[in-house]
This record gives sequence, structure tokens and C-alpha cells, in this order.
Amino acid sequence: MMSGQIIAIDLGGTSAKLAMMDQEGNILEKWSVVTDKSNKGQVIVPNLIHSIKEKLEDLNLTTEDILGIGLGSPGSVNYLEKTVIGAYNLNWSEKQDIGKAFEEAFGIPFYIENDANIAAVGEQWKGAGNNDKDVVMVTLGTGVGGGIVVDGELLHGSTGTAGEIGHITVDPDSVIECTCGKRGCLEAVASATGIVNLAIHYLGTYDEETVLKDILQSEDVLTSKDIFDAAKSGDAFAEFVVEKFSRYLGLAASHLANTLNPSRIVLGGGVSQAGEFLRSKVDRYSKEFMFPTIRDVTDIVIAQLGNDAGIYGACKVVLNEQSKEESVN
Amino acid sequence: MMSGQIIAIDLGGTSAKLAMMDQEGNILEKWSVVTDKSNKGQVIVPNLIHSIKEKLEDLNLTTEDILGIGLGSPGSVNYLEKTVIGAYNLNWSEKQDIGKAFEEAFGIPFYIENDANIAAVGEQWKGAGNNDKDVVMVTLGTGVGGGIVVDGELLHGSTGTAGEIGHITVDPDSVIECTCGKRGCLEAVASATGIVNLAIHYLGTYDEETVLKDILQSEDVLTSKDIFDAAKSGDAFAEFVVEKFSRYLGLAASHLANTLNPSRIVLGGGVSQAGEFLRSKVDRYSKEFMFPTIRDVTDIVIAQLGNDAGIYGACKVVLNEQSKEESVN
Repeated sequence: MMSGQIIAIDLGGTSAKLAMMDQEGNILEKWSVVTDKSNKGQVIVPNLIHSIKEKLEDLNLTTEDILGIGLGSPGSVNYLEKTVIGAYNLNWSEKQDIGKAFEEAFGIPFYIENDANIAAVGEQWKGAGNNDKDVVMVTLGTGVGGGIVVDGELLHGSTGTAGEIGHITVDPDSVIECTCGKRGCLEAVASATGIVNLAIHYLGTYDEETVLKDILQSEDVLTSKDIFDAAKSGDAFAEFVVEKFSRYLGLAASHLANTLNPSRIVLGGGVSQAGEFLRSKVDRYSKEFMFPTIRDVTDIVIAQLGNDAGIYGACKVVLNEQSKEESVN
Repeated sequence: MMSGQIIAIDLGGTSAKLAMMDQEGNILEKWSVVTDKSNKGQVIVPNLIHSIKEKLEDLNLTTEDILGIGLGSPGSVNYLEKTVIGAYNLNWSEKQDIGKAFEEAFGIPFYIENDANIAAVGEQWKGAGNNDKDVVMVTLGTGVGGGIVVDGELLHGSTGTAGEIGHITVDPDSVIECTCGKRGCLEAVASATGIVNLAIHYLGTYDEETVLKDILQSEDVLTSKDIFDAAKSGDAFAEFVVEKFSRYLGLAASHLANTLNPSRIVLGGGVSQAGEFLRSKVDRYSKEFMFPTIRDVTDIVIAQLGNDAGIYGACKVVLNEQSKEESVN
């Protein structure tokens, strides 16, 4: 049996959330560190290390009391090399050797995953995933992120880029362009940005009244919240757009279910705040496209942990890796 | 280090292929047993057990020389309970307790998987998968089967039904019905049956000359081979159908790549005998739909082992399970 506490870090563009946690996932202490992006983000990691050292002193702990450190990061994370590249919201355009810095500072096990993966593990363990072993999370924000947990472990794939759920092509004939250069990606039609893309695309040929036309004329900008609010109050065009959006999301969810057979598909991120209104539509469309035996065993659920998902996930990643190493030794 | 040989069984509707293999996957002895489906298939398993006992005697081996037995079966396989149900080509409509029968007869470890999974493991290990750890196989026969290997292990999902690749909806607006009750499944448009479905669907509105019309009129039936042969000899309509078929298959392959990030997607089954003509088309379409970083690291390849894939896969499943148990003990 392993002993020791876990230090969990969820690194974001504005601040990093940190927590001292026990092995059951209880948060013993929670604090945050402002993300100082100056000087190409070169003080971000030293600041985190400094803050953790202070906290250990405050709590009268040494590194011997700590089982390991887990970190969720934006950007393109190499979990094996423990490096990050292309995290532009941290001003990290070049490769950052995060693992080396933490291991030199503390001499204890350190693990890193991208933020979508970390959030998926958090929800799987302590949130809407119900601690089931096979859970997929789809994070609907400005883009669409994904994290896949298979048999209790994160799925990484051959080069660590598994779970590019936002770039599943849900409409091969779409003219709507994605930031990745393709067309008809889930992210291009079913993120906060994507639903606006859809609305603007269809507004061009819509001759009837809709509150979305008025908003666009008066404010020169349309948000996903405008569209969901209009749909909820019965605006026919907004309803049409939300149905399109939900059908695309349902189609992608069905691909995940038919392929991976998870017990739960968790919808998270800002757009998921549309709640049951959104969930019930995605559920209906996804079930239409699922294989019968899979349809009956797949639940579409809304995320529960909000911004804390990353902390829980960072903790669980340490526990998973440590128990694997224990079983090998 | 484990010792002992492996008995591999690939059970089919006409015969079962059996092999005595070493741990490197060399076939030491290969034989077959006719599948006697009389009496609701109740003599199939006793016949296999009897044949194995005879073979052990012939080779002067006892069960102590055997590490384990692996079996691939048609139908709906529960790999945890080691049971099979709904294997209609064996006349097994009710649940068969295969694991119990083998374990009682031999008292050594026994493992069972469905035939698509077993073939996928075989190709991953000794065939077109190059022994890479993350490989997906898509078997294009009368239907479309699938098997997913993640980090060297079969992916089962929460209820053991992962890999229903044939029932990924590749055309949500299709009118072509699938045997599963849905419409626009990969299997309904991109199996041996599916490509005929496509041809007949589009023939209805095709006014020009095509050799497929002549074949259909003279023989009253059209096969996937007719369509591929016509396309290869430049028949414009057949080319159009093969392009449609390949685009659907490419789309499904892109979903698998974007989700799972395998190094290789192996195309197997009878239809894959179209070879490079098919592979190059599926490759082109799938790359169009893959996320850029995934596009560069995913190879679409044709299966290499033919009917032997099952034997190799059955052997590897025993090795995988035994090495897991060894690492736990």
C-alpha cells in the first residue's frame, strides 16, 4: 500500500490552481498562483515550485510525505518526455522541460497531462463519471477538447494525441472551416464558436424574423449564450440552430460510443452550462446513431466538477501511475 | 518468465482451425476439426476438447506443458464470463458456457474473444500491425467487423462491446438500411453487401451505360467483385460507386484515427483483396478527414495473415493475459 499525499496542479492562462490532496481525493489544502506570462513564460514553473516549497514548510511537510506531483497543462503535452510545446496562452511557443524542473526541485515522481485529459480523469473519478472505468469527456468551450478513460487509464495512442474529438469530421460536405484547416470538424460547428458559425451560415438564407438577426445588427456580435437563450424562449431559427448543433454533437458521441463502449459520455466546458436543455437533445440524437446494444448502456451526462475537475484529475493521474509502478515492482 | 506452449483455436462455421504454438508465435503443429452443427451445436465443444486431448497424447505432452488455451468464436462473446450467445452459424442461439467446459476438461487457463477481436490481435502482433502497440483492424466481409488494440491490449469497453466499427454512422441522412435497424451504418454502405447496396441505390437514377446494369439484368445479382472489377476496367459508374465506398470507409477510418491515434489501421476481410486499388483510395479520403498531427502518423495498410490471423490472435491473447497475471502476482 502506498502512503503519502499528492500535490495537484491545474495550470491555466490566468492562474494555476494547486491542491494538497489525500489518496481518497479529499482536498486538504487549496491555493492558487497567478500565472506570470512575462519573459516568454519562463517564471511560470519557478513560481509554482517556489509556492509548493513554501506550502510544504507551512504545513510542516517534507517531500518524503508526498507520493507525487500531477500537473495539467494547456498546449501540446508529451506525457512521456514530460514536456509542453505550443501553449500560447502561457507564452510557451518553444518546448518546455517541465518534468526536469520539477524532478530536480523535489526529487519525487512528477506526471503531466494536457488539460482536457486531466479534466476527463477528474470527472471520471469524482464527478459525472461515477468512478466507472470507461468514460469519455467532451469539453465544449471556445474549441472542443476530449479525454478518454479506458479501463481506468487515460488513452494516449501511438504518439500521445488520442482524443482529438473536436476534429472528428461530423459533416464531410460542410463549407464551415475549422482552425485546423479542415472543414466540418465537430469544433467548427459544435463549440461556443461553432454554434455561432452555424447561426451565421444559416442566417444568410433565412428570410423570417429571428431575435438573432436583431442582436447581430445591434451588437455586431453573436454569442453561444444568445443562441441558447433565444432557443429556450422559442425563437424558431435559434431552435433550428440548436437542433443542428445537438445533432452534430450526438453524431460524434455515437462514434465514441460505438467505438469505445464507455458507460458514460460527459459533456463539460462552458457550453455544457446549457444543462438538461442541451443534454436531452444530444442524448436523443446520439441514441439514434448508436448500435442497439450500446444504446442501452451509454449515458450522456453533464459534468459536475466545473473548474475543480483539473485538480481531481491531476491527483488521480499520480495515483494511477504509482499503482502501475507498484504492481510492476 | 512463463514457460509452456499455447493452444490456439479459431472456431468457424465450417471448421475450427487449431494450432500448437510457442511463445514467439511459431506454429509447431496445425490441424483442423470439422464443425458439426447438429443437435444445436452441442457437440462442437466436446469435439474440440477430444481433438486437443488426442493431439496432446500424440505429441507426448500433458497439460503441464501448456500455458493456456485461446479461442476466437463467432457470435456475441462475453470474455469475462467466457460464454457465447447468438452464434447462429454454429447453431448456438442460447448461451454456451465454453469456459467452464474447457476449464473442467484441462484445468489450465482458458481465454475467449470474438473472432473480429482475435483477428485484430493476430494482425497487430504478426501481420500488418508490425507489432505496434496501438492498432485498429477493420474487417470488410459480408458485414464490417472491428477490433481495437490499445497499448498492446484488446479494448473491450464497459460491457465488452467496444469496436462496433461496422455500425458507425457514416451517412446520417442515408436511406440505406442496416441489418441493425439503423440507416447509413458503415456496414450498410462499405461491406461486400454495402457496396452492392450503394450500386443498386445509385443505378436507379443513372441513365448512362454501365456494365453493372448488364450484369444485373443477365444474372439478376451483383457482387462486390463485379463492382471492383468494373471500376478497375474503367467503368465510370462503378468508379463512382467505389469512390463513394472508399470515402465512407475513409471517413470511418478518420474517426478511429482522431479518437484512438493508432499507428496503423489494418483493412482485412474478403473485400480487402481489392488490395492497393482500395487501400490508396481509403488512404486519400481518410487523410482528408484526419487532424493534421494525426494524419502524418497514421498508416492505412492491408491485412497480411488472411485466415491465419485468428490463430495468431488466439495465441497472443493467452500471452497477454498470462503476463498480466504474472505482473500482479
